[in-house]
Amino acid sequence: MDQLSQTFQALADPTRRAMLAQLSLGEASVSDLAKPFLKEMSLPAVTKHLKVLEKAGLITKTKDAQFRPCKIKADGLDNVSEWMEEIRKHWEDSFDRLDAYLKTVTAKEKQKAKGKKNGRKK
Amino acid sequence: MDQLSQTFQALADPTRRAMLAQLSLGEASVSDLAKPFLKEMSLPAVTKHLKVLEKAGLITKTKDAQFRPCKIKADGLDNVSEWMEEIRKHWEDSFDRLDAYLKTVTAKEKQKAKGKKNGRKK
Repeated sequence: MDQLSQTFQALADPTRRAMLAQLSLGEASVSDLAKPFLKEMSLPAVTKHLKVLEKAGLITKTKDAQFRPCKIKADGLDNVSEWMEEIRKHWEDSFDRLDAYLKTVTAKEKQKAKGKKNGRKK
Repeated sequence: MDQLSQTFQALADPTRRAMLAQLSLGEASVSDLAKPFLKEMSLPAVTKHLKVLEKAGLITKTKDAQFRPCKIKADGLDNVSEWMEEIRKHWEDSFDRLDAYLKTVTAKEKQKAKGKKNGRKK
């Protein structure tokens, strides 16, 4: 799976998004991150979610032997932003083209109407 | 699956992202959208991808009986943008807090250093 697909795939889960939202506030240990979810899922399930986020380049686990805190990666969402930006640019360009087209059509229609009016006057 | 997860899931595929990129340039028929992919996949597979995009609220199929062109939805990516914005805001806030904390620490250190210097002078 390509990197961007992997990032989108990692974000396609509310638990993983909640973990990322918590990590955006500052680094946290695995057990801190697990706390809100331990009623619904096991610790191995939490660890699995964290691994998906790590593999997608969205978080890193630091090597601090005792606590191994997780940290959000500064550039983890850059590829998503870039892709969104590209789509938006395309889109705006196509609106600009539509706008230019409509302006040409309107100008032509106006000219036609003017021509008819002048024709009637003659 | 919640709407945002469904959107991210739909975007987690290079074929679907390419279709969306094409549609961002303007509406297109299913057969136009299928053209670049028919070497690698069948028409039903293409239609399935389009259904995933439609279900995720990213495109619409207009009811024009003969051509049924597909169209990108203007607000389809809004929930993704909003979520990204929220994460980024959290993050910037946490950097601001870190910045404020570092400034306090530096100011305290400076004061301590000044105190020591003055102490030596006496």
